[in-house]
Amino acid sequence: MDTKTHLKFQNQKKYIYHFDTHQIDGSIKDRHLLGNKGANLAEMSLLGLQVPPGFTLSAELCHLFLNEKKNLKDLIEKPLEESVKRLEKLTGKQFNGVCPLLLSVRSGAVSSLPGMMDTILNLGLNEKTVHTLAKIYKNERFAWDNYRRFIQMYSSVVMKMNSSLLDVYLEDYKKKYNYLADSEISAEDWKKIVPYFKEAILQNTGKVFPEDPWEQLWSSIEAVFNSWNNPRAVVYREMNGVNSFEGTAVNIQVMVFGNRGKDSATGVVFTRDPSTGEKKLFGEFLQNAQGEDVVSGMRTPLLIVNEESKEKDLKTLMPESFEQLKQLCDKLEKHYKYVQDIEFTIEQNKLWLLQTRNAKCNPKAQLKILFDFMEEGILTEEEVLEKVDTSFLNTLLHPSIDKKNKNTVLAKGLPASPGAAVGRIAFDGESVLKFHKKSIPAILVRCETSPEDIKAMIHSKGVLTLKGGMTSHAAVVARNMGKPCIVGCESAFIDEHKKELHFASKRMKQGDFITLDGSTGDVLLGSVKMKATCLDSLFFKLMDLSDKYKGLTVRANADTPCDVKKAKEFGAKGLGLCRTEHMFFEENRINIMRKMILSESTEERHKTLNELFVMQEKDFYEIFKIMSPHSITVRLLDPPLHEFLPQKEKDILALSQKLDLDKDKLTFKIQNLSEVNPMLGHRGCRLAITFPEIYLMQTKAIISAMRRILEEDKEQKMQIEIMIPLVCEVKELKFLKSLIEKEIKKSEDKIGVSLNILVGTMIELPRACLIADHLAQNGDFFSFGTNDLTQTVFGFSRDDIGQFLPIYTGKNILQRDPFSHLDIQGVGELMKIAVKKARAVKKNIKLGVCGEQGGDSQSIPFFHGLNLDYISCSPYRVPIARLVSAQCNIKEKRK
Amino acid sequence: MDTKTHLKFQNQKKYIYHFDTHQIDGSIKDRHLLGNKGANLAEMSLLGLQVPPGFTLSAELCHLFLNEKKNLKDLIEKPLEESVKRLEKLTGKQFNGVCPLLLSVRSGAVSSLPGMMDTILNLGLNEKTVHTLAKIYKNERFAWDNYRRFIQMYSSVVMKMNSSLLDVYLEDYKKKYNYLADSEISAEDWKKIVPYFKEAILQNTGKVFPEDPWEQLWSSIEAVFNSWNNPRAVVYREMNGVNSFEGTAVNIQVMVFGNRGKDSATGVVFTRDPSTGEKKLFGEFLQNAQGEDVVSGMRTPLLIVNEESKEKDLKTLMPESFEQLKQLCDKLEKHYKYVQDIEFTIEQNKLWLLQTRNAKCNPKAQLKILFDFMEEGILTEEEVLEKVDTSFLNTLLHPSIDKKNKNTVLAKGLPASPGAAVGRIAFDGESVLKFHKKSIPAILVRCETSPEDIKAMIHSKGVLTLKGGMTSHAAVVARNMGKPCIVGCESAFIDEHKKELHFASKRMKQGDFITLDGSTGDVLLGSVKMKATCLDSLFFKLMDLSDKYKGLTVRANADTPCDVKKAKEFGAKGLGLCRTEHMFFEENRINIMRKMILSESTEERHKTLNELFVMQEKDFYEIFKIMSPHSITVRLLDPPLHEFLPQKEKDILALSQKLDLDKDKLTFKIQNLSEVNPMLGHRGCRLAITFPEIYLMQTKAIISAMRRILEEDKEQKMQIEIMIPLVCEVKELKFLKSLIEKEIKKSEDKIGVSLNILVGTMIELPRACLIADHLAQNGDFFSFGTNDLTQTVFGFSRDDIGQFLPIYTGKNILQRDPFSHLDIQGVGELMKIAVKKARAVKKNIKLGVCGEQGGDSQSIPFFHGLNLDYISCSPYRVPIARLVSAQCNIKEKRK
Repeated sequence: MDTKTHLKFQNQKKYIYHFDTHQIDGSIKDRHLLGNKGANLAEMSLLGLQVPPGFTLSAELCHLFLNEKKNLKDLIEKPLEESVKRLEKLTGKQFNGVCPLLLSVRSGAVSSLPGMMDTILNLGLNEKTVHTLAKIYKNERFAWDNYRRFIQMYSSVVMKMNSSLLDVYLEDYKKKYNYLADSEISAEDWKKIVPYFKEAILQNTGKVFPEDPWEQLWSSIEAVFNSWNNPRAVVYREMNGVNSFEGTAVNIQVMVFGNRGKDSATGVVFTRDPSTGEKKLFGEFLQNAQGEDVVSGMRTPLLIVNEESKEKDLKTLMPESFEQLKQLCDKLEKHYKYVQDIEFTIEQNKLWLLQTRNAKCNPKAQLKILFDFMEEGILTEEEVLEKVDTSFLNTLLHPSIDKKNKNTVLAKGLPASPGAAVGRIAFDGESVLKFHKKSIPAILVRCETSPEDIKAMIHSKGVLTLKGGMTSHAAVVARNMGKPCIVGCESAFIDEHKKELHFASKRMKQGDFITLDGSTGDVLLGSVKMKATCLDSLFFKLMDLSDKYKGLTVRANADTPCDVKKAKEFGAKGLGLCRTEHMFFEENRINIMRKMILSESTEERHKTLNELFVMQEKDFYEIFKIMSPHSITVRLLDPPLHEFLPQKEKDILALSQKLDLDKDKLTFKIQNLSEVNPMLGHRGCRLAITFPEIYLMQTKAIISAMRRILEEDKEQKMQIEIMIPLVCEVKELKFLKSLIEKEIKKSEDKIGVSLNILVGTMIELPRACLIADHLAQNGDFFSFGTNDLTQTVFGFSRDDIGQFLPIYTGKNILQRDPFSHLDIQGVGELMKIAVKKARAVKKNIKLGVCGEQGGDSQSIPFFHGLNLDYISCSPYRVPIARLVSAQCNIKEKRK
Repeated sequence: MDTKTHLKFQNQKKYIYHFDTHQIDGSIKDRHLLGNKGANLAEMSLLGLQVPPGFTLSAELCHLFLNEKKNLKDLIEKPLEESVKRLEKLTGKQFNGVCPLLLSVRSGAVSSLPGMMDTILNLGLNEKTVHTLAKIYKNERFAWDNYRRFIQMYSSVVMKMNSSLLDVYLEDYKKKYNYLADSEISAEDWKKIVPYFKEAILQNTGKVFPEDPWEQLWSSIEAVFNSWNNPRAVVYREMNGVNSFEGTAVNIQVMVFGNRGKDSATGVVFTRDPSTGEKKLFGEFLQNAQGEDVVSGMRTPLLIVNEESKEKDLKTLMPESFEQLKQLCDKLEKHYKYVQDIEFTIEQNKLWLLQTRNAKCNPKAQLKILFDFMEEGILTEEEVLEKVDTSFLNTLLHPSIDKKNKNTVLAKGLPASPGAAVGRIAFDGESVLKFHKKSIPAILVRCETSPEDIKAMIHSKGVLTLKGGMTSHAAVVARNMGKPCIVGCESAFIDEHKKELHFASKRMKQGDFITLDGSTGDVLLGSVKMKATCLDSLFFKLMDLSDKYKGLTVRANADTPCDVKKAKEFGAKGLGLCRTEHMFFEENRINIMRKMILSESTEERHKTLNELFVMQEKDFYEIFKIMSPHSITVRLLDPPLHEFLPQKEKDILALSQKLDLDKDKLTFKIQNLSEVNPMLGHRGCRLAITFPEIYLMQTKAIISAMRRILEEDKEQKMQIEIMIPLVCEVKELKFLKSLIEKEIKKSEDKIGVSLNILVGTMIELPRACLIADHLAQNGDFFSFGTNDLTQTVFGFSRDDIGQFLPIYTGKNILQRDPFSHLDIQGVGELMKIAVKKARAVKKNIKLGVCGEQGGDSQSIPFFHGLNLDYISCSPYRVPIARLVSAQCNIKEKRK
């Protein structure tokens, strides 16, 4: 990403891009340079819409200023002066002149960071121009209101003055004169207040409020650029995976005024209802106001369309402007092919557009709108698929707090990391671990967290802290872990001594249930009910459409008949990973498995393997029944044997009694099996090289299940792929494949029917990638295990990375968790090598991915690019994978 | 290797190669086809020496027969018949004819497997030809003696009869007639014995001894081919790293007879004394005998030259033949440019050469001989270097049992795995582990071992079993671990109850000291003294010569002033790996390290780091003093912090008292630091990203040590390379390098002198190889850590691989331990990628290897091929590395 952006920048020497009635230097395609807002301003200008003239300072300039520490004046002093002159000429006004030109200075990043960055309005006012403005507009109050607005904004954004100091004074002033609203404050009042503001600024910042509009302009530009790195913006980028390198553009425009009286207004409109998708204008406005009034909450904005009290909506109050706005909305929707979120200002009945952008919608609303667009002929099927936001689908599929129930909100904190979590209160790491060991969900509750708490955070379902803000340790770490977190819940109190958590309404003890809603910051009483996933017809319509344009086939990772059923419901076309060990962890099975592991002789091992055979065969039968005729990849036993054995003295004693074994001997055996680095130990196919009888039993169970199904229905089509894990050397594969194939052959000869079984290998070690040509010559298929591959390529243990990953992402050493999103530079490079080598010797070898990244929307395009046969992921991620697969396919065909 | 050999084979359709006075199809260059013996027979024939005419069946034929299960007659029936006819024509004799042609059939592998494989002499004799032979040679006894020899050999080698059955009968016969020696047995006796032999063979094998010479020949050829896979040969190959794919050739020659009377003899001669290197013929012979008599021990052979009793040496007994032999030895030595080990037969004063090969010499003798050759003008300096056996150098450098002391041999077993080990007797795994935990050396003593004992074997110094042979579990596993082992020590007895080990002369208890000499099979009483390495002038001469032709520079891995001194003695030109953590494991230092790890705040950590600084600075000062001006690579802290902390409750309690910390809190902290897979955990540069103050302290200590040295001597040249371990991402390197360089810059500015410090990274993770271009842009040098790279490329934990590696090599899944010898296919491939990428962006980047394979003679040629700047290994391996480095260089220049 870095390199690419950098390349795009390199050939530019131009940093200022105009958009006005005579010259438009950019369009929507120049987002990377002009930012989203700047590009849209240019685009709307191109469309001939009413946009206040102005120009954009490019994101490249921001990069040079912030990262390369270049001096702005060296780069743009002349061009900026010329650009302002140009605006003077276009408007017939003068910057710092008799008919004063006022400007707005607004940030506009490449990626949308709504509300995260800074804006300055009414720039150009000073002791002199405020008077000329009053004269020209014949409105003293208007001029002074603008001036005080400018002082308030500028002192806060540029001079870093705490804005509440001025607000407090204003409130006091209003009280003194019994004013209820700002509108009651007269020009004369403002004339008194302004000097006070300036004095307060001087005392507070040590600086005189600048009179020179040029000084105002330069400082504002720098301040807006710097706001790219303000803590709010950094947190937002972190949460949304925005590259910190992108930077922001700055848009400088001629001011238009919504505060020139009843015939003026300012507002925001969505072209359709973003929460329901309904086709009607949705938004708010205020008459006689400037932009920030709508947001500030000082005055209650009116609705654009208000069915309930029509007399107060824009349609009724300003019918002409409403009609104009409606037509514009229609035009912009059709042009952008998406619901628009539009900022507008009406100045004396003239409608100006200040911004348009694709609206953020509720997931279901988005789907409805897209399909409506399709029916209205605005979008094609392909375009609908491309425009669906994959992360929204995630929200659709995961349970969330059911807001229909009346939940007791105990307190509210900052929503530091989204998602809902239920668990028992635990005040320290030890308690979390105690709960965790008993498989009891825990919520870590602390005043604040420190690096010492990381292990506790890993093992808790969610984190609640009483102190700290959005960038506190708890917030940063939890976001990186993808764990729900609420911080700064200052109304609560921890009684360390009594181990109690006090809320205003309730005292709770360690072990009591609470629920966190990390998306809202609500702390809820007890174990709150979650809303089950509810899939509606739009969802299925989307899925059907995805499959129509599908690229990679999507399979699921599922190990039990129950999960396999769910996978099928979500539209998985086969299983890419059916882990056979999970079948043995059940209460009534694990002791047989243990007996097998502990058996002293091959005979004894055979006896217990026979018991396991019966169970495994039954599971295979059910799984094959459900998922056939789609392909099913069965992975033979993978984890180290000691994972099945107890580790604690108490449990060992119990097992020794149960299996009638000497306790000391058992302890010694278990110690003997334990490993320093189990991940790199005696597991996977290494087990089967040592004890071939295990894989043989599993092969027999597969064959038997297939035969049973065929006996019931001769026509049943099945394709089973037996997968050998953790292969690093071709001879491992040869040895085990021949063992397995002999068994299959024996059975086929006996029943006289050819069983459709492939034998292949998982590619999950660097060496497997490097010898992929040899492996391909000896295997029927490959499935990339990207989890393990990531572990060995980075040398990261997935179990331990929590100890330092938050620090890594915090210091920007890594941008994201490589286990969540494929590392294209390293892991991807090895995959490319493997695919190339494998296809060189076996052109049509079946290739898939079964690591969890197979369901990650950021990783799938890479897998698509490798032209694999399928991707496989957990059932819940199958729908996203289907959608992204279609998106990749459409994108490729477009090329 | 496989592929290469295979390629060489592919274009051959010829399987029989002649060597006789009219046609010679091969030479010494055809070793891969003709085997060592066959190639030398051809070569000697080319030189015009007296070699009995014959032909060689190629090793390719062996491969087709053994591995591809081809039928021999399909491949060579006609050519074999023609070849025998050719010998009939050349000799005027007839196979199965009136003047019978007798043949010898001898194995001859590509790599020398001395005495490991089978031979059949006098082939062609039967009831008919024994009579004609007697008639033609006018010697009944000669004919019948040959016949019984043939029956004994053939029945044993081809018919798999237990040869002792015939030996016992022969002994009984001799007793009955009061014969003392075989020579007293007359022709008439043999005529009686032969029918008995045949009857015994029939009863024992169920098969009639074949009369047909063609049947004899075909069966013998198959038997010799099959002997390639006999257990002795398999073990030998395994111990010596011979590829099991090579196969053996078969040499078929006209018999010459050393048993035709006093004017005939057979013997073996070395052209120089292989144990001292002295320039004199050295060897043994027997008059009137065939080859196996010399070896069998039934008759005591005479010396070729016997200064003490001249009347019994060859020189005196057969002066003419001796002179001939002497000239031949001279000729062969000059031709082969190496000491030769020659088999000869004298038939009626005519000298025939049956084999010549490079002699196996004692390491010191080899050196002496090579340097003598140089002085005699036979070898150039380069040739001397190329001919030194690197594994011999190993023997020279490692301590061995000092045989000057009188050691008590308690018993003798089979020398299953070479090397000497001293330790306390431990009868089971638990005891071994108990000793091991107290750092007491243990010798595992068992009746036999099973896979359950592997962990115990890993932690013992050596293994002694009372049962089992050279291929028993203990033997195979110990060889693969490189651990001294004696098996089949059947004269000893274990009293399990009393935990005692009984020898004939002594009863020993668990915990008593014994010593194993795995090279001889001797079990010795007590803790036997080892011979210190003693380096003589020849060694230094060799090292000087190596450096004259050196390729890669050789550095050492050493961490303490003491080791650095040793490294310098062994000729290391710098340090490639100075591990800084080892400096903290000492008794008086570890608690300070622990305090640092456990510190609750950055301030506290700084305080303890200051204490550590003083110690580290002192070490650096001494190390730099010793090794400068050669480059020194200092690796900053690498292991996970919990390695420094106690794990046992008792030790934790002690530490909590010592450091005045709450025990529960300490326990929790230690648990918190523990990891599932520490190898892939929070270690290396990851620690420094979390706690930058650690690397800062280390950097300061390096700078301070350099400054102290410079204060003492301004002219002292130093180059310190600061190495950052475990880098997987370029930003890790950037972050830490800039941290370190700031510190250096600060110091340089202060003292006004530029310090010669480079900052680079260890390449020890697959991802580091894949992003080597980015790393090269940001680092001054790379050092490949092949140990860790091997771990992640294979997914093998070095600590755990002992659990399955013996099984892997046993089943031929892996041919060798990838930690001992570089895996060229996987690890090597990644190294190639890394070197290519790095040089593409920084042509002259300094590249080295610091994994222990840097000192492995099998791996160095690969590193040479990569054109690295240096290799680095433990001090003891430096001399071998210097030699191999020169050898690689000479080889390359020759090309």
